Amino acid sequence: MSAPVTLHGYYRSSASFRVRIALNLKGLAYRAVPHHLRRGEQNLPDYRRINPQGLVPAMEIDGRVLTQSLAILEYLDETRPEPPLLPKDPAGRARVRALAQIIACDVHPIDNLRVLNYLRGPLGQPDDAVARWYNHWISEGFQALEAALSANGETGRFCHGDTVSLADVCLVPQIINAKTYALDLSLFPTVKRIADTALSLPAFEQALPANQEDAE
Amino acid sequence: MSAPVTLHGYYRSSASFRVRIALNLKGLAYRAVPHHLRRGEQNLPDYRRINPQGLVPAMEIDGRVLTQSLAILEYLDETRPEPPLLPKDPAGRARVRALAQIIACDVHPIDNLRVLNYLRGPLGQPDDAVARWYNHWISEGFQALEAALSANGETGRFCHGDTVSLADVCLVPQIINAKTYALDLSLFPTVKRIADTALSLPAFEQALPANQEDAE
Repeated sequence: MSAPVTLHGYYRSSASFRVRIALNLKGLAYRAVPHHLRRGEQNLPDYRRINPQGLVPAMEIDGRVLTQSLAILEYLDETRPEPPLLPKDPAGRARVRALAQIIACDVHPIDNLRVLNYLRGPLGQPDDAVARWYNHWISEGFQALEAALSANGETGRFCHGDTVSLADVCLVPQIINAKTYALDLSLFPTVKRIADTALSLPAFEQALPANQEDAE
Repeated sequence: MSAPVTLHGYYRSSASFRVRIALNLKGLAYRAVPHHLRRGEQNLPDYRRINPQGLVPAMEIDGRVLTQSLAILEYLDETRPEPPLLPKDPAGRARVRALAQIIACDVHPIDNLRVLNYLRGPLGQPDDAVARWYNHWISEGFQALEAALSANGETGRFCHGDTVSLADVCLVPQIINAKTYALDLSLFPTVKRIADTALSLPAFEQALPANQEDAE
């Protein structure tokens, strides 16, 4: 735990945002190394040597480089267990992971910068079609989340009970993204309530894109 | 462990395919309930009551309904630990999860049926543009996987050492998908070698789409 932790990220990357939240929750100091995705800095040889996939985040920790935000979050939780990001019971863990994956697998990858660039470039889509695409997939995901959260007694102040979990860590960055194209969040009252509650905590607030050194 | 396990799936769904492999590896008998995605059966009220998100797979197990394939796989591994799908050390677990997520987060969601339907429908893209899209994202993911596997001494007969893991469980269905639009797999020799090795095991072979009761 002595060597410093380095987080390669980008202030607007919501996968980096997830990891920033987790590091803050666990009280782990880290060095942030920004890579400007819109200028293509993730494709520079120096960064490709760290993460051949050319995506952020990547984390240098315990003498290794870890990639993929969900894998990093699970690693942090296994090696720095307090406060936990997953409940102890397998059914609770499955619920929290499934909620997180509605965001991390079914929404975020489809709305990622590289996909939007493909829509604009090779597919020649205009801005309004890209905006509809963006909001379509967030809406689909938030509808699923709203249904899963509002209909389940295990939902509390947060996605699973009254303590923060992996699900909240994934939800909040997606809520911030949803503001990009002014999605109407009133359709998803439980989702919005939980995100607002989480954002009142310093660990979430300090991880906001606007509060990063590379914010423009 | 006594009550029967029910897997709601579809023979061509690669997320369902992952869960079929895991059930076979763990020797867990299950009842397969197919939902014909191309006919929209996942949107019927009876299925939406099981999984409000209208996606497959969903699993009825231990008196609960679980969704999201990666969450289901972790649950199976936590409650039926033999043979394990994850190594014991946190660093190894992080590597296996990251490899799995290159497929499950960065490739599969973007090439999912509902996304292809959006390209064809609202965006009016012709078949050749959809095929290029499909292969583009698999190529991006397989390039990342090939780099991660070929450059790392922890890669063995399988993605992580000489035993099957979550990474192989996610890789094989994506390899089968890659044949849809005839992607040239010779560019990814390590990926292909590992998939071929895995497919020589009955647990993988029996989970193939062609070997399901609902196969057409």
